[in-house]
Amino acid sequence: MPAQLGSWNDGPVKNAIIDFVTRVTTPNGPDLVPPAERIATFDNDGTLWLEKPMYIQLEHGLRAIAKAAAEKPGLRDRQPFKAVYEKDMAWLGKAAADYAKGDPSGIFTLVTGVAEVLEGITVEAFEADVLDFLCNVQDAHFKKPYRLLTYGPMVELVHYLQDNGFQVYITSGGGRDFMRAICEEVYEIPRSMVIGSSVTFKYGEDAQGVPQVLRSREIEQPIDDGPGKPVHIHRTIGRRPILAAGNSDGDIHMLKYARGHRRPSLALLVHHDDAEREYCYDSGSEKALQLAPQEGWMVVSMQQDWKKVFA
Amino acid sequence: MPAQLGSWNDGPVKNAIIDFVTRVTTPNGPDLVPPAERIATFDNDGTLWLEKPMYIQLEHGLRAIAKAAAEKPGLRDRQPFKAVYEKDMAWLGKAAADYAKGDPSGIFTLVTGVAEVLEGITVEAFEADVLDFLCNVQDAHFKKPYRLLTYGPMVELVHYLQDNGFQVYITSGGGRDFMRAICEEVYEIPRSMVIGSSVTFKYGEDAQGVPQVLRSREIEQPIDDGPGKPVHIHRTIGRRPILAAGNSDGDIHMLKYARGHRRPSLALLVHHDDAEREYCYDSGSEKALQLAPQEGWMVVSMQQDWKKVFA
Repeated sequence: MPAQLGSWNDGPVKNAIIDFVTRVTTPNGPDLVPPAERIATFDNDGTLWLEKPMYIQLEHGLRAIAKAAAEKPGLRDRQPFKAVYEKDMAWLGKAAADYAKGDPSGIFTLVTGVAEVLEGITVEAFEADVLDFLCNVQDAHFKKPYRLLTYGPMVELVHYLQDNGFQVYITSGGGRDFMRAICEEVYEIPRSMVIGSSVTFKYGEDAQGVPQVLRSREIEQPIDDGPGKPVHIHRTIGRRPILAAGNSDGDIHMLKYARGHRRPSLALLVHHDDAEREYCYDSGSEKALQLAPQEGWMVVSMQQDWKKVFA
Repeated sequence: MPAQLGSWNDGPVKNAIIDFVTRVTTPNGPDLVPPAERIATFDNDGTLWLEKPMYIQLEHGLRAIAKAAAEKPGLRDRQPFKAVYEKDMAWLGKAAADYAKGDPSGIFTLVTGVAEVLEGITVEAFEADVLDFLCNVQDAHFKKPYRLLTYGPMVELVHYLQDNGFQVYITSGGGRDFMRAICEEVYEIPRSMVIGSSVTFKYGEDAQGVPQVLRSREIEQPIDDGPGKPVHIHRTIGRRPILAAGNSDGDIHMLKYARGHRRPSLALLVHHDDAEREYCYDSGSEKALQLAPQEGWMVVSMQQDWKKVFA
């Protein structure tokens, strides 16, 4: 029995999703889209799982920086090690606030610091470390391990699409390899279908002569955010999606790219308007929310459209 | 009925392939590999289709360069436009010969020339142009359109693996988007499963305001060759292959990477030793052929192992 949208309240958004999927999958229908072209792309942070009070991956990165700063005093006289070691919340808060306003410099300093301390480890070692973090570190507010803080209705939507012959990809502004550690468990999305930002890599051989792919400290350009999202989608998939879902200004280009398809298309924008069950904020999503009506994007209200928030 | 290896002669190579696939797919067997980990990666030029007298994509590129040089006289005073316009076979031959000897500078000049003249076109326009070329331009020796010059036994092997639950990827040193134009038709490999070298891209909007992914003139680093192959495999798949097939020195790192798997693994090296039905050459494959016995790679003799060459 195919997945249903049981966690979605009846209303225009649920109707639009079901209508769209019915249109593109009805055999012999005028809008039938062959399965190979049923591509859906989902942003991750804030769309498929929690992104507040900060990106989950950032918490993981801060721990890596703190560990390095504790072990190597020589790092502490420069950012981001100084701020993390001294628990300088003003510096850290400004980095996050600037990012929401469109200035990524502080976050970039943090990300490059993380890449620096993880330089040279194998991709397998990185993944094992991430998996341990996601299974064992709890979110301070919800008191649950991060891997349990996915949005139930969105995961249901992923499965509903998969059961209707869609190929569903994650397109995260965050780290591709970070999400690969649990994408198969929490979303049932294969790791080859995770698109995201990344460091670059080097080929090397370990002490036993076994070939390994090793992380470098360099951030691959472009990152998978804003105009980089359609570029990454082309690189990985080679087809324009007919459905895209996001929640922030970083998803604008992806949503427009999907809506530019010559076939029927659907764009969804998750709006965090549920202070009671999750958070209520427009910060970092102002432009997307403003564009939604004129671009024909469906705004998903967490408060009104979802029977529950978490999976 | 699953695909069989009917175009392969009985012998140690065919036996090794069947034994390996049986081992990793036997339910409850000691070497069973779950389908998600049954990753196979195939080099393209010289492994899945013809690469002589020159890479098929190079012929496509030379036509693009010739067209630009014919239209824009200002280009003709520098390489690669000068050599192509003047049909300077000494320059072109040296570029190819240097590449086989490990010096890619001449080929790189050609590739960057192609990227320059195709700068700014959409990925869809590029694909349409490639498809036209592959369907309508004939190889001078075999008198057939290039798309018909795939190796029958290798395509059969791809399908045999797919029918046994393998996910089969192409990992071409050549252009990813070039192969995407026909991978689904000639190999039944989805375009999302083509890994290869590429230019970088820019996001833009066309005159109608439709978002497009546009080719740039910059070559993405690393190219998908040599030590770049395991890096590209990690980026796209996120898993180490258990089977890899190649034919040249550019495949050495990929074959070693597959053989470094903690699970059973198989590496195949196609040897072009069939002057009668195709070509006979070791040039560009000398190191790989020398390494094969000590690394445990199976050398596939076109002459002895294949009943026919082309599909």
